[in-house]
Amino acid sequence: MKAFVMDGIGETGLTEKDRPEFGPSDAILKPTKGLICTSDCHTVHGAIGDRENLTLGHEVVGVVDTVGEAVSDFEPGDRVAVGAITPDWSSEAAQDGHPSQSEGALGGWKFANVKDGTFAEYVHVNDADGNLAHIPDEVSDHEALYTTDMMTTGFAAAENAAIPIGGTVAVFAQGPVGLMATKGASLQGAGTIIAVETVPKRQELAREYGADHVVDFGETDAVEEIMEMTDGVGVDAAIEALGSDTTLQDAIKVVKPGGTVSNVGYHGDGEYRHIPREEWGVGMAEIDIVTDLCPGGRLRIKRLLRLLANDRVDPTKMTTHEFEFDEIEEAFEMMDEKEDDIIKPLIHFE
Amino acid sequence: MKAFVMDGIGETGLTEKDRPEFGPSDAILKPTKGLICTSDCHTVHGAIGDRENLTLGHEVVGVVDTVGEAVSDFEPGDRVAVGAITPDWSSEAAQDGHPSQSEGALGGWKFANVKDGTFAEYVHVNDADGNLAHIPDEVSDHEALYTTDMMTTGFAAAENAAIPIGGTVAVFAQGPVGLMATKGASLQGAGTIIAVETVPKRQELAREYGADHVVDFGETDAVEEIMEMTDGVGVDAAIEALGSDTTLQDAIKVVKPGGTVSNVGYHGDGEYRHIPREEWGVGMAEIDIVTDLCPGGRLRIKRLLRLLANDRVDPTKMTTHEFEFDEIEEAFEMMDEKEDDIIKPLIHFE
Amino acid sequence: MKAFVMDGIGETGLTEKDRPEFGPSDAILKPTKGLICTSDCHTVHGAIGDRENLTLGHEVVGVVDTVGEAVSDFEPGDRVAVGAITPDWSSEAAQDGHPSQSEGALGGWKFANVKDGTFAEYVHVNDADGNLAHIPDEVSDHEALYTTDMMTTGFAAAENAAIPIGGTVAVFAQGPVGLMATKGASLQGAGTIIAVETVPKRQELAREYGADHVVDFGETDAVEEIMEMTDGVGVDAAIEALGSDTTLQDAIKVVKPGGTVSNVGYHGDGEYRHIPREEWGVGMAEIDIVTDLCPGGRLRIKRLLRLLANDRVDPTKMTTHEFEFDEIEEAFEMMDEKEDDIIKPLIHFE
Amino acid sequence: MKAFVMDGIGETGLTEKDRPEFGPSDAILKPTKGLICTSDCHTVHGAIGDRENLTLGHEVVGVVDTVGEAVSDFEPGDRVAVGAITPDWSSEAAQDGHPSQSEGALGGWKFANVKDGTFAEYVHVNDADGNLAHIPDEVSDHEALYTTDMMTTGFAAAENAAIPIGGTVAVFAQGPVGLMATKGASLQGAGTIIAVETVPKRQELAREYGADHVVDFGETDAVEEIMEMTDGVGVDAAIEALGSDTTLQDAIKVVKPGGTVSNVGYHGDGEYRHIPREEWGVGMAEIDIVTDLCPGGRLRIKRLLRLLANDRVDPTKMTTHEFEFDEIEEAFEMMDEKEDDIIKPLIHFE
Repeated sequence: MKAFVMDGIGETGLTEKDRPEFGPSDAILKPTKGLICTSDCHTVHGAIGDRENLTLGHEVVGVVDTVGEAVSDFEPGDRVAVGAITPDWSSEAAQDGHPSQSEGALGGWKFANVKDGTFAEYVHVNDADGNLAHIPDEVSDHEALYTTDMMTTGFAAAENAAIPIGGTVAVFAQGPVGLMATKGASLQGAGTIIAVETVPKRQELAREYGADHVVDFGETDAVEEIMEMTDGVGVDAAIEALGSDTTLQDAIKVVKPGGTVSNVGYHGDGEYRHIPREEWGVGMAEIDIVTDLCPGGRLRIKRLLRLLANDRVDPTKMTTHEFEFDEIEEAFEMMDEKEDDIIKPLIHFE
Repeated sequence: MKAFVMDGIGETGLTEKDRPEFGPSDAILKPTKGLICTSDCHTVHGAIGDRENLTLGHEVVGVVDTVGEAVSDFEPGDRVAVGAITPDWSSEAAQDGHPSQSEGALGGWKFANVKDGTFAEYVHVNDADGNLAHIPDEVSDHEALYTTDMMTTGFAAAENAAIPIGGTVAVFAQGPVGLMATKGASLQGAGTIIAVETVPKRQELAREYGADHVVDFGETDAVEEIMEMTDGVGVDAAIEALGSDTTLQDAIKVVKPGGTVSNVGYHGDGEYRHIPREEWGVGMAEIDIVTDLCPGGRLRIKRLLRLLANDRVDPTKMTTHEFEFDEIEEAFEMMDEKEDDIIKPLIHFE
Repeated sequence: MKAFVMDGIGETGLTEKDRPEFGPSDAILKPTKGLICTSDCHTVHGAIGDRENLTLGHEVVGVVDTVGEAVSDFEPGDRVAVGAITPDWSSEAAQDGHPSQSEGALGGWKFANVKDGTFAEYVHVNDADGNLAHIPDEVSDHEALYTTDMMTTGFAAAENAAIPIGGTVAVFAQGPVGLMATKGASLQGAGTIIAVETVPKRQELAREYGADHVVDFGETDAVEEIMEMTDGVGVDAAIEALGSDTTLQDAIKVVKPGGTVSNVGYHGDGEYRHIPREEWGVGMAEIDIVTDLCPGGRLRIKRLLRLLANDRVDPTKMTTHEFEFDEIEEAFEMMDEKEDDIIKPLIHFE
Repeated sequence: MKAFVMDGIGETGLTEKDRPEFGPSDAILKPTKGLICTSDCHTVHGAIGDRENLTLGHEVVGVVDTVGEAVSDFEPGDRVAVGAITPDWSSEAAQDGHPSQSEGALGGWKFANVKDGTFAEYVHVNDADGNLAHIPDEVSDHEALYTTDMMTTGFAAAENAAIPIGGTVAVFAQGPVGLMATKGASLQGAGTIIAVETVPKRQELAREYGADHVVDFGETDAVEEIMEMTDGVGVDAAIEALGSDTTLQDAIKVVKPGGTVSNVGYHGDGEYRHIPREEWGVGMAEIDIVTDLCPGGRLRIKRLLRLLANDRVDPTKMTTHEFEFDEIEEAFEMMDEKEDDIIKPLIHFE
């Protein structure tokens, strides 16, 4: 079968591989549509170390091809989505309410990390009953695709932010995860949503997904402007959706005493992140800093699909480009360089 | 000044009263608009016992007339809303996170209960700094009025229901509190909202406020239909917004194991409410039954006003009738009899 | 192998059975010690319907005899405990934080309910990696045995009760679950613990496990006495550990507005449980009624074993009688009749 | 009256002052016993800026001397404790569940910060009904004194740490707040408590207050040793009770994915605190960093007094030295220099 792989840091390409094997609880999925994620680019640049002949990709929907003998709720031909994170549900971390951390930090992240990813003609899914979800008839493959990472990750940022109904929220960066965090804040009942972004197209989408105000950090000091907008009080919650030291610091600076900083950005470099001591209230202002990794699992994906079935959100507005699977290398390069204001490139497998 | 009072069970009328006195932390409010609540009717029929010459009403907005010497954040002329519940913020109950229960069960409920209510030319507000909220310019008096009880109560029902994002909710009864519970479920990110109601006008509003399905209990068995809609699983959360034994039982019956029954109905008669033992999972199905009394206070009302300022909801659709203050007795009788499909009658004070 | 079975309602006996089969994720356990539970008696009397040739028992520790090929963390010879509840960790209920409700209400309860229980020479354990826990060297089999049901259930009652540090708690009934709820309240930092019990031996143990006061409901009105003890305010939390309508009502009556009723009793008969409407604050006093089923799983049992290893509690004080496996029928009858002030009868398998 | 004041950075002394004035909701307290806190030393060294003729001290118990006309629950002669933090209970922050942050970051901290402190013959208490608590007969002044800061602060560190029953906790530094955090972890049901400390007397007290293990960071690498003790997994919760950059980093390093870092240390210098990026799981390991400021208020202090009345803890073991009020300067200097292994110096006012 064909697969799009990383073969050493900085090296990618389409190649031929054997179809994946599977155990009694597993399934083999035949992808219909996929999305490229910026973290695929990070991986290729070495963020998680070197990898040889590792299939890339973790955002996919498709049709069940084969199931192991212990799989009870899915069968060949079922149209399904699978979360980017596929936890070991029996693990102690999952029993503790942190399935994404099963078998160690970020251990639920298997695709294109500890095993082959989803940019292939056949994809292995561990614990099919626990990690697949049926796509309702009302939901297209294209829509469903966004549940697997962008929606689940962005919404989780908002859920973790403990936003009171009618509360104020600032969302730093409006890439696809930030846009979904903005939408998530809206779905959690935020009263005022302030999006921080400088790219016009992303600013526009931020407004469509629920931002009441957009702060252009290219033109103004975001911290000052947000403090002014909130009469010097600060926001109830700030979401970091970029992964940079600066935006994390800014998020801490604009949160009021008693508020929450919800980090969803992947902090990919540097030895430290910096907490500004005074704005942090010298460790006594009751500002919580919380983090999250993309929640996966059948129940989670099923609930997100329900939001799509009932028209709560249209994530496909973030699809700016489309490619055939054969053209994936070109798509990958555009995503890597963020050319042509690309947000999400859709890959058609058939 | 003129006041609309209860003077013995079943007796109401407009009368003359002295203007209220006030302490150092209090304010006197001059109402501009008010709403009649079904609980005003309950009160007149004796639900909280007999009362003599008690001014009715608890939903009001207006202009500050006078403030006590210790009030720091409000002054005469300010346009303000005040919650139906005006807690003693120093009380142990408030310190414990239950301000509505200050000084005993439901103790935060003062208007038309332990002191004169709001259907008068001048209204006394305890702890003005803690219980008043400025109305933003973008919000009309009419809109703001709904924050004082219907929005805060209905939304609280949804907040307490612990609805997961994308989860399923059933809301029993679509009176004004139930309608706001439906809207609240939407603002909390519910994936599917099922409203239970038989009056066509209320069914229609339920859809406008976010219901995906309406179950007409006059035409079908609501429990059966909801169980069918959820593939026999039941809903994540059920909201009781009527106050009857039957709907509370139905709410318990349709909630799945691990789900939440959120009661916001005022249960005004009978010695007991009944928990159906089997559907309750013989006390071991992890179904929580939680209750709430209309959250008040400056911060709460301020946050709800923010939702109005940013167009998250239009509660004025529930205003079906309008009256001058002089005509309040007629309005009251219509509300008591639920004539002409009345939902909320608006009272103009000026 | 020998097994102690229920064979029709009211019928029990030792019999011969085949050794259990097992799947790839399962283990076979060879018991060393077990405990009889009052719910075994309920089962025999038909509480969950008729059963034929069903092995009884769900509280057991032992040695791993065999493991399936997919089991990675346990091997023959390991000394282990297994929770009475053995969830399907991939199920939607478990993903939702309610593993005891996997595959429907109380669905995590498999032993002596939907499959053979633990009173046998060999016992089948589903999902060994998820449901077994190694017993530390410092902990005896006898001690470890109490983690499987009495400690996990009683402690959960206290954990669910949301007891503030220094708060007040009333625990209704001091059977073994109630005693562990009393200990659990102590381990959660309760400031005053009031145990309600009439049997002298249980009263004495209640004091040893942390009760500050014992209310003998045989000699006094428990509700009145608890209200008096709390200056008419009521307790922060009340725990129902019996399963009767009366004690549930009493628990509701003594909880203050804003407090929590935590039910852990198995309500085995009657069509309804009754909520006293007025003391429930007419549905608006913010009294939560929550329930629980015995939490199981490797992590939970491991944590409870840690409490034993570090001498936080000695549950073996509850062992009032000891029997060989051959004598189990006699033990069962004593437990059924609550003869000789029996609390827990220990069964030695070897 | 006599008062012990700070009069410029580094300057302290006993002086004469007028008795404090009071408003309608306030009380004047006549101290009987007080404790010096390390933060008094920080203040004198300029941590919160310069102060002129500011009375120091915030840990005090005494007898009510006078009350304002609006005070309803206290009268002259009552024996009372008052929290170091005396919130404005009507403030938005208090309504939001963060009373210590009323009127801005740390705004509930008034004694020896924004008004005169407690080392004086008469002490002003704002909102007497909300901030005083009666001391039960069974509790001595000396014991009660510890509720005002050390117990409430240390216990809060443990409560915020979200310790699962039977979970593992590391407490960094065993000064009086750290010792009470250790005791707090024990009162929250921790299964294993690891105290990090190098002073022998504090190590000994740590064991008395519930530590199962003591890690001497002077002799070993604390992070390595804690990781080894937890089989490489890390602890469920780590408490920082010192206020240094290093211990905060260590706390992050030893917490497992999904765990909580609870900061209670006052971070008094430096521009930043540093989060070690990798051990923080690159912002995706679900490690929460939470902070707290000494919870005050009548209910809180009342609950802590209950723990003393029922012998849950003996905090007076931390009193290493005693002085008359006239000798307070000497006591202050010993505390400042941490001479003679001083932990807490008790001041007798009479």
